[in-house]
Amino acid sequence: MVKLVALYKHPEAREDFDKHYEETHTPLVEKMPGLKKLEVTRMQSAPMGGDAKYYMEAAMYFEDRAALDAAMGSPEGRAAAKDVMDFAGPLVTMMIGEVARES
Amino acid sequence: MVKLVALYKHPEAREDFDKHYEETHTPLVEKMPGLKKLEVTRMQSAPMGGDAKYYMEAAMYFEDRAALDAAMGSPEGRAAAKDVMDFAGPLVTMMIGEVARES
Repeated sequence: MVKLVALYKHPEAREDFDKHYEETHTPLVEKMPGLKKLEVTRMQSAPMGGDAKYYMEAAMYFEDRAALDAAMGSPEGRAAAKDVMDFAGPLVTMMIGEVARES
Repeated sequence: MVKLVALYKHPEAREDFDKHYEETHTPLVEKMPGLKKLEVTRMQSAPMGGDAKYYMEAAMYFEDRAALDAAMGSPEGRAAAKDVMDFAGPLVTMMIGEVARES
């Protein structure tokens, strides 16, 4: 299993961000072909208190790297990528990773 | 479900890091009471190529925040926390988050 991970820094306009993420961006992500699971985590704090470094993480799971590459190259994937750059370009860090252990 | 997330920056001595993570740290994490799942993701790249911002992510899942707090306060949790600070203190960013959506 591979993951496309999006880490979002804290937005200035939190409500606008949440609304766009939920109402506009999530439906675009869910249209990506081959998407196995979307897991969204809202960060609450650092372990010893204080703000978490990131506001939110979205992890998009695909069967393998080929499936992820195909999804990113599809019209649906390009639409989701364009949307994320439009609404959260300066906030987002994206990475591709392989799930090495699940126990 | 809540997650304790550890994001590790790229280590200088990758083999030493991997060996310690797998042989020493993982068994300590797996002893934490109430741990539902440990998911380790090895980052491969950024989506458009180039290095991923982080080397690895470990996500530790617990039923709720009370279970996570209890795990972190337990002798096993303190041993795992001490170990991570010893072998990867300058590399690691830790956050607590709530899984808001899984689809």
